Amino acid sequence: MEIKAIEGGICAAKGFKAAGMAAGIKKNGKPDLAMVVCEKECAAAAVFTRNKVKASPVYLTTEHLKNGRARGILANSGNANACTPDGAEVAKRCCEAAAKATGLRAEDFAIASTGVIGQSLDAGLFEAALPDLAARLSVDGSVEAARAIMTTDTVPKEFAVEFELNGKRCRVGAIAKGSGMININMATMLMFVTTDADIAPDVLQQALATEVEASLNQVCVDGDMSTNDTLILLASGLAGNAAITQAQGADYEAFGAALHDICVKVSRALARDGEGATKLIECHVNSAPSVEIARAVSKTVIASDLFKAAMFGADANWGRALCAIGYTPGDFSVDNVRLRLQSAAGEVLVCEGSMHHDYSEEEASKILAEEEIRVLIDLGCGDAEGMAWGCDLTYDYVKINGDYRS
Amino acid sequence: MEIKAIEGGICAAKGFKAAGMAAGIKKNGKPDLAMVVCEKECAAAAVFTRNKVKASPVYLTTEHLKNGRARGILANSGNANACTPDGAEVAKRCCEAAAKATGLRAEDFAIASTGVIGQSLDAGLFEAALPDLAARLSVDGSVEAARAIMTTDTVPKEFAVEFELNGKRCRVGAIAKGSGMININMATMLMFVTTDADIAPDVLQQALATEVEASLNQVCVDGDMSTNDTLILLASGLAGNAAITQAQGADYEAFGAALHDICVKVSRALARDGEGATKLIECHVNSAPSVEIARAVSKTVIASDLFKAAMFGADANWGRALCAIGYTPGDFSVDNVRLRLQSAAGEVLVCEGSMHHDYSEEEASKILAEEEIRVLIDLGCGDAEGMAWGCDLTYDYVKINGDYRS
Repeated sequence: MEIKAIEGGICAAKGFKAAGMAAGIKKNGKPDLAMVVCEKECAAAAVFTRNKVKASPVYLTTEHLKNGRARGILANSGNANACTPDGAEVAKRCCEAAAKATGLRAEDFAIASTGVIGQSLDAGLFEAALPDLAARLSVDGSVEAARAIMTTDTVPKEFAVEFELNGKRCRVGAIAKGSGMININMATMLMFVTTDADIAPDVLQQALATEVEASLNQVCVDGDMSTNDTLILLASGLAGNAAITQAQGADYEAFGAALHDICVKVSRALARDGEGATKLIECHVNSAPSVEIARAVSKTVIASDLFKAAMFGADANWGRALCAIGYTPGDFSVDNVRLRLQSAAGEVLVCEGSMHHDYSEEEASKILAEEEIRVLIDLGCGDAEGMAWGCDLTYDYVKINGDYRS
Repeated sequence: MEIKAIEGGICAAKGFKAAGMAAGIKKNGKPDLAMVVCEKECAAAAVFTRNKVKASPVYLTTEHLKNGRARGILANSGNANACTPDGAEVAKRCCEAAAKATGLRAEDFAIASTGVIGQSLDAGLFEAALPDLAARLSVDGSVEAARAIMTTDTVPKEFAVEFELNGKRCRVGAIAKGSGMININMATMLMFVTTDADIAPDVLQQALATEVEASLNQVCVDGDMSTNDTLILLASGLAGNAAITQAQGADYEAFGAALHDICVKVSRALARDGEGATKLIECHVNSAPSVEIARAVSKTVIASDLFKAAMFGADANWGRALCAIGYTPGDFSVDNVRLRLQSAAGEVLVCEGSMHHDYSEEEASKILAEEEIRVLIDLGCGDAEGMAWGCDLTYDYVKINGDYRS
């Protein structure tokens, strides 16, 4: 089954238009307001932050998606609309303004915000900008929308793929923002996915919930979990495939594979563009006693500040990785760990049987000088595997976060 | 009950001598070998790393302290003696060399190492240095011993206090090293404590295990937990108090209070001297539904990279603290959080009822410019309290750890 990368981002799937613009929420005049709208009602699924402190849009979107249906997404950067007395009211007014500008209903919209916590968001800025934003909606609007949700991201993130469901061509596309406050269990992440596959809302939700565990919940920039993380998936059904109504079978698996492909692409992009990052670190764990342990070990290694700092210094300090493996919760043996470091410059075995393995420090440094590093861990105690994505810890991370609000 | 700070560090308690010297384990010629010996057999208690990957000395010390008795402590910096094929044999040879040099038995010694993981430790260096080290043992040797266990620490850490047990003057003293790889559940920490109180081994162990949960396990520099963490407590009984044989009663509590005082002093010193730190962050949580939740919340806040970076930037970004409170595991309300920032320059209320509270950014910056910051969190949902200690995240942390081994 072929999954092919295509252009178009969140507008690649049939029926979707998007737009982005500067509405004055960010003080620096950069784009900060995005909208995605579908020409017909979509099946809708969503996953949110597990933080006990949730931003107002998270509550409102949960409410709006209760029926498993939506028509569009409204999102802003520059302000999280979290922990302020008027947050719920503001989120409601924003959706109403989106409805008025598009001729849809307020409850047709999912809404998401990202940015500073604890400062009131001005709904008036939405009301003033939305007629203009709605007028700009276009099938070419994906990258504009991706730009408008950026915070400390350095590049907009959009991806799309094409695949077949029983002979019908379908598409899945996405835009996302990440950068800091990125942890296991998502992060200060917004991600919006569209597809033209025809799939029932409950099946869509199950596909999304399963996929998030394998990819997006395995991304870690700094171990912080935000109040706003939101992932929304809309399915227009316009591809004309036989509707997927069960969470099993060849069509469900083909859809899941395409969704996985997009989610891994986004996971890698989020980690690569982590705040201050100079390197993408991809950690594969195999021969684990369970998928849960494989995932836990991989994410513990890529979340270790000490290991991340060593990667920044291109230092093959495998002891720090072994140390992180050892403090991963769970019951498993650490007596038989095999650890390799790999990049475009080659591969080096640095640890075998949980002990030092002779290697050339020079060769290791050359491998770690690359911008994409793979840490390959064989636990030697089972046959399950898992992956996680992270980045190095750099001076710039400290710089960015030492003075984010100014 | 008065607890008074005194001089003498680990030699303040009657019966103990210490020494430190350079044995050539560190390539830079700095002190790297320390010994503490008591003139009589002591009751001994210990707490070790919970990492599944444990260094060889951890296993050997566990074995040697099985009978609840010990006479001395041998410790080195510069090499962790972890994850090498000959680690167990090396640790054994080092204890034998200490025995030979002092006329004691190898099993009378607790042994601990700290430094790089995965490189063989040369027992020959111990054998060559130990006669000299034993000859230097002195009641004035505490600071020398404290210096010899430093890794990236910038200052030696020694403390002692005096208190009374039923009219008898007793002392508790300690030396410690910390700096990086410091987490909840200790860290790359070595801490050695002596007392001249007379206390049974099992009671001593219980006092230590209880205390560690309240203080040392609440220290976090970078969230990494090392393979070598070791805390050893020796009680000589030479103060002449009526022996404490039960983990209850006034004497047990008086001893516990003195031990707590020392452990908090060490916790603060470890956090203050965290790798690259410019500030000590002390977090108090009160009005929590349980001590466990109070401790968990305080340590989650001081462990947040985002909050740590904000402290470095003297930025009163309370949203990051609230966010960390919200992702602390456990079942508790986050609707009524009150958050104050305090230092020698004053106090400012920044969040009330989990919402922004108007404050002067100028005043907040002035408060956060100090070197000791207290974060006071009222959860508003109970009456339990807890504390944790950490530091800011700085450029220097990245620098130190980007190239530790060179």
